[in-house]
Amino acid sequence: MVTRRVDLRSDTVTKPTETMRAAMAAAEVDDDVLGNDPTAFRLEKEMAAIAGKEAALFVPSGTMGNLISVLVHCDIRGSEVILGDNSHIHIYENGGIATIGGVHPRPVKNNPDGTMDIDSIVSAIRDPKGELVYPTTRLICLENTHGNTGGRVLSVEYTDKVGEIAKKHGLKLHIDGARIFNAAVALGVPVSRLVQAADSVSVCLSKGLGAPVGTVIVGSESFIKKARRLRKTLGGGMRQVGVLCAAAFVAVQENVGKLEADHKNAKFLADGLHKIKGLFVDVASVETNIIFIDIEEGSKMTAEKLCKNLEEHGIVVMKESSSRIRIVLHHQISYDDVKFTLSCFQNALNGVSVENGN
Amino acid sequence: MVTRRVDLRSDTVTKPTETMRAAMAAAEVDDDVLGNDPTAFRLEKEMAAIAGKEAALFVPSGTMGNLISVLVHCDIRGSEVILGDNSHIHIYENGGIATIGGVHPRPVKNNPDGTMDIDSIVSAIRDPKGELVYPTTRLICLENTHGNTGGRVLSVEYTDKVGEIAKKHGLKLHIDGARIFNAAVALGVPVSRLVQAADSVSVCLSKGLGAPVGTVIVGSESFIKKARRLRKTLGGGMRQVGVLCAAAFVAVQENVGKLEADHKNAKFLADGLHKIKGLFVDVASVETNIIFIDIEEGSKMTAEKLCKNLEEHGIVVMKESSSRIRIVLHHQISYDDVKFTLSCFQNALNGVSVENGN
Amino acid sequence: MVTRRVDLRSDTVTKPTETMRAAMAAAEVDDDVLGNDPTAFRLEKEMAAIAGKEAALFVPSGTMGNLISVLVHCDIRGSEVILGDNSHIHIYENGGIATIGGVHPRPVKNNPDGTMDIDSIVSAIRDPKGELVYPTTRLICLENTHGNTGGRVLSVEYTDKVGEIAKKHGLKLHIDGARIFNAAVALGVPVSRLVQAADSVSVCLSKGLGAPVGTVIVGSESFIKKARRLRKTLGGGMRQVGVLCAAAFVAVQENVGKLEADHKNAKFLADGLHKIKGLFVDVASVETNIIFIDIEEGSKMTAEKLCKNLEEHGIVVMKESSSRIRIVLHHQISYDDVKFTLSCFQNALNGVSVENGN
Amino acid sequence: MVTRRVDLRSDTVTKPTETMRAAMAAAEVDDDVLGNDPTAFRLEKEMAAIAGKEAALFVPSGTMGNLISVLVHCDIRGSEVILGDNSHIHIYENGGIATIGGVHPRPVKNNPDGTMDIDSIVSAIRDPKGELVYPTTRLICLENTHGNTGGRVLSVEYTDKVGEIAKKHGLKLHIDGARIFNAAVALGVPVSRLVQAADSVSVCLSKGLGAPVGTVIVGSESFIKKARRLRKTLGGGMRQVGVLCAAAFVAVQENVGKLEADHKNAKFLADGLHKIKGLFVDVASVETNIIFIDIEEGSKMTAEKLCKNLEEHGIVVMKESSSRIRIVLHHQISYDDVKFTLSCFQNALNGVSVENGN
Repeated sequence: MVTRRVDLRSDTVTKPTETMRAAMAAAEVDDDVLGNDPTAFRLEKEMAAIAGKEAALFVPSGTMGNLISVLVHCDIRGSEVILGDNSHIHIYENGGIATIGGVHPRPVKNNPDGTMDIDSIVSAIRDPKGELVYPTTRLICLENTHGNTGGRVLSVEYTDKVGEIAKKHGLKLHIDGARIFNAAVALGVPVSRLVQAADSVSVCLSKGLGAPVGTVIVGSESFIKKARRLRKTLGGGMRQVGVLCAAAFVAVQENVGKLEADHKNAKFLADGLHKIKGLFVDVASVETNIIFIDIEEGSKMTAEKLCKNLEEHGIVVMKESSSRIRIVLHHQISYDDVKFTLSCFQNALNGVSVENGN
Repeated sequence: MVTRRVDLRSDTVTKPTETMRAAMAAAEVDDDVLGNDPTAFRLEKEMAAIAGKEAALFVPSGTMGNLISVLVHCDIRGSEVILGDNSHIHIYENGGIATIGGVHPRPVKNNPDGTMDIDSIVSAIRDPKGELVYPTTRLICLENTHGNTGGRVLSVEYTDKVGEIAKKHGLKLHIDGARIFNAAVALGVPVSRLVQAADSVSVCLSKGLGAPVGTVIVGSESFIKKARRLRKTLGGGMRQVGVLCAAAFVAVQENVGKLEADHKNAKFLADGLHKIKGLFVDVASVETNIIFIDIEEGSKMTAEKLCKNLEEHGIVVMKESSSRIRIVLHHQISYDDVKFTLSCFQNALNGVSVENGN
Repeated sequence: MVTRRVDLRSDTVTKPTETMRAAMAAAEVDDDVLGNDPTAFRLEKEMAAIAGKEAALFVPSGTMGNLISVLVHCDIRGSEVILGDNSHIHIYENGGIATIGGVHPRPVKNNPDGTMDIDSIVSAIRDPKGELVYPTTRLICLENTHGNTGGRVLSVEYTDKVGEIAKKHGLKLHIDGARIFNAAVALGVPVSRLVQAADSVSVCLSKGLGAPVGTVIVGSESFIKKARRLRKTLGGGMRQVGVLCAAAFVAVQENVGKLEADHKNAKFLADGLHKIKGLFVDVASVETNIIFIDIEEGSKMTAEKLCKNLEEHGIVVMKESSSRIRIVLHHQISYDDVKFTLSCFQNALNGVSVENGN
Repeated sequence: MVTRRVDLRSDTVTKPTETMRAAMAAAEVDDDVLGNDPTAFRLEKEMAAIAGKEAALFVPSGTMGNLISVLVHCDIRGSEVILGDNSHIHIYENGGIATIGGVHPRPVKNNPDGTMDIDSIVSAIRDPKGELVYPTTRLICLENTHGNTGGRVLSVEYTDKVGEIAKKHGLKLHIDGARIFNAAVALGVPVSRLVQAADSVSVCLSKGLGAPVGTVIVGSESFIKKARRLRKTLGGGMRQVGVLCAAAFVAVQENVGKLEADHKNAKFLADGLHKIKGLFVDVASVETNIIFIDIEEGSKMTAEKLCKNLEEHGIVVMKESSSRIRIVLHHQISYDDVKFTLSCFQNALNGVSVENGN
């Protein structure tokens, strides 16, 4: 019987801590739609400061954060956004920027490190002289860390360079910073420096930071003013939202410091998994808290079967493809959990049962 | 100095009760986007039962509840919805059904009691034979209680009749039930009976019921399945949303019973205000918890000035127009508050200061 | 056997004249999408001059002319247009401004004379202070003549007044001028004076003027530049379009002068029809080339039956409702046709056959 | 002084022939929006037969043909289309399917021969099990010939294979057949066989076939019925459109047989240009009527300068990039023009003047 369960599907599965629960219970709140919730204000002020931007806005999810940001920058009909062909916005957000917002996506190939080639970005920008048949490029989107390539970190230099290009062509730069804290910690720079070149950033607080709900978007005063209105249009305005913001505030205060341990655990786990016969992990590419584990070609094991075996041992992971599994670390996965996970993988591949427990 | 403050702007300004706060702090939660949050399930199941529908979905706001409902029923390009020209969806939701959803609104005149004439509804339905130049009518929306006419209640008979018409013409019926509990209580019928003819209802829990955040939409299994996906597109999917659902569950359990008192307070207050020289209230039309107060024509007093005077006395109300003020009662406004409000109105009109406090 | 056929369904049914056909055959043309068609240029220049605007653009239809105009004025997401609840744009254009363009229509009641009350327009304009929940009003649309109320003419004074209001509130004014030449002729003023207050006008050349195809929109240089691009997006850019423009140019040169006769014929016909027992025509309201004929209440005759009877006599008309028929005059309907029509009506109502022919 | 002008910018620049002009002048027409134009019917019937489909619809342009086709197949909100990243729809149509239609484009890499790898297509189709975060793939688009890769021809086998995949996954297949006649002629197969696997095809008549204006879309009866309505929404419905259809009918009758000569001329010209020092043409890839001419690296000549020099000699071509020029042949470019063009190129590169004229 499985008594121990280690949920490695995503860093979105974290449970609110006791401190967060206490903060929710004690939160001073008012009607945020009417513009009166003090706890929402406090969180937004804090996040603007962390990101080095003028203003911030709490939204229910990272998807809404990205959707609002793209739509505000592309508020004129006929706009186009340049974004990674393997980015979260392009792949995992229901195509909302087009299907809801009427924004034309112009995907550019993502490299394995999450970047797009600078040249490719430049050549995707539409020549304004040919405007009769082209949508107008208005925005470039980056994603840092880049989830779909395994939590890869975009450097300050790269981000600045893309920001320069954007500025030169009169475009805006948005960063999907669902895991921007992971990137900043991995690089050893403040978030504000890392996103300095961006006009807006969507920062998720319910991933590695462990808040129960919420993303904050940051940008200029005028950007946030438009964002607030669009949040209302989409139905993301919430009344006594301070109860969520209180928990999110705790997440920012208490959990940023824990991300480094997640990265260490990921590295340790990646290394151990790579050593298991039949598995391959590109250990060098594990820069933050995400690990892709490939089953070696020719193996009789499939990702589906391995997931099932692991679940029997109490390890829950995400299938990425028929031969790839994804693992995400977070502050509620201990070093001990990681060691346990390693032994379960070994056993799941051997088909041998394992003593479940500490 | 004002020490007592009575906030009558809206029933959205309620603060979570101690029980709600305790429920949030203790909520059993998981990742609802991955489909695992037990507290969200419990609330959705309860709400489906209350509304007599197959399924339910928690969303961040009434605006999103309506937006999703209209868009799901009108998921084919070229759809049209018949709705009240004074309805919340048409007036107060940023035109989102058109600007975000591309649905064509066909407003029909709202009567002072919140209904639309049955004949007007029928004649607004587009003749399918003329389809070359007409959008396709796919949906009728009602609003119960009808906010912009002062919380007026649509009867079971009227709702059933509109439902019949919808069915006859192959249309769907959505009810914006932001205050459907108020309507049900006023009529003395269960919510499930009142919305029996509807294909979907958006039920707000953060108005009179006092939950900090949240609306639940109810409908068939297949409607809710589509709604869940659209919620994700809009960015309304939240992770450990159980913390909000726990509070909302308490709201449903504890506060439905308090609505009757709100209605009584509203009637009492309306009656009292009408008796004040210079004010007019159509007392008979105060059927639930909303009161419109008109300043008599020819008065030197304006709504703006009256609001300001009242605020100095600690009474916060909403200006509707240059000569109209709106008041909304809720469970955190006591009978004593109502009496205090009455005396403040008297003084605000007299321009005389009043002792503030109990 | 019917040998004579008088088609009174619409002024869109006119056939190109010999002069138009000759002009098409001889037209000097080039690729207008590449910006080189001299005949398109000539027509656009002429129409800009007639309307007193800076620039003009040929488009395939009145529907596209209105769609482009509304979308150019409302090019920012979240826009709202104030328009008549009985206007062509709101009723007969598939709701395209919303379903294709995401523009929120805010219909205001059309009076029987095609106007909207000035007060109603003003109060429909959204208060910018409440912008969180309101779409942004950006445009007012008028229709002159107003088709759905029977070709009623909006005066210069009324149009100017609406233009003033638009300007005062920072809005644009578009006129659906499908039959603006009829209006100008009826008023005895130049088109340029009549549309002076408008930022854009959609002028149809294939209605009373008899061109086979085409509408021209007029406005400022910058408006037309945006319109040209949007025309391309919608697929309204045509290559050697000069063949159509040549015919349209002839229409403008030759047929404006014939509209007065159409109006006289309409008046004569209206008068005659009203005198027929069982029919009612509001003769005073027949200001241009459209006549609504109502079958008197209590009659056993229906519009459907009457249409059928008339068709047997060679008269083709349009059914508007179960008791209303519409007739539209144009330059290919002679005074003799009108007299023949009158006699056919008499016979159709009597159920007596009539000698068909001159 | 230049007296001879050879316009090689595009096959859209053809002028209507005398036969076409005569046909326009004599066309039997009626109001096609009311559904009565016999010449439109005749053309549509002919085109449906040629393409082997049930029905057809005349539209003003290829852009509208593609827009309508994509939007009809993707008429449910949240749809996604798989299309070439170098396709006309994705690059040159203002992003209309997204900006006007809200359809999410999912571009797949186009190979130099205009195909997309079958595997890439298959892996771009969204797994319906993950539907919560994915738009729904509903359509695959091919383009034949593929313009942006130089008029490359997709084979019957390839088209059939993509059709099979579409069918297997419940998707539709649309072919942008702007130059489908060129492809059919190059392959020596009937158009009907080449597009057999397609659910819809947009066939341009104003490119190589030389009609002044017009595209016809073909498909099933139900597809065309929806297309007709959407054409009205977009404003593509035209009144006495028979004048255009008459010319287009002539184009189909008279000019299909001339395409083979265009292809021969293109091959001859490509060969000659490639032999000119300083130019490079991939002669083998010139399969139809389009030629890309690259200026050799390291040359002091630029595309801009070469275009200018050529224009001085009377040769008008299109600049594709700083080092690439595009030439398109058509039935109004003779073998003699081709020889003249070759000599002008030689002189333009030499900077030597050339005697202009035959």
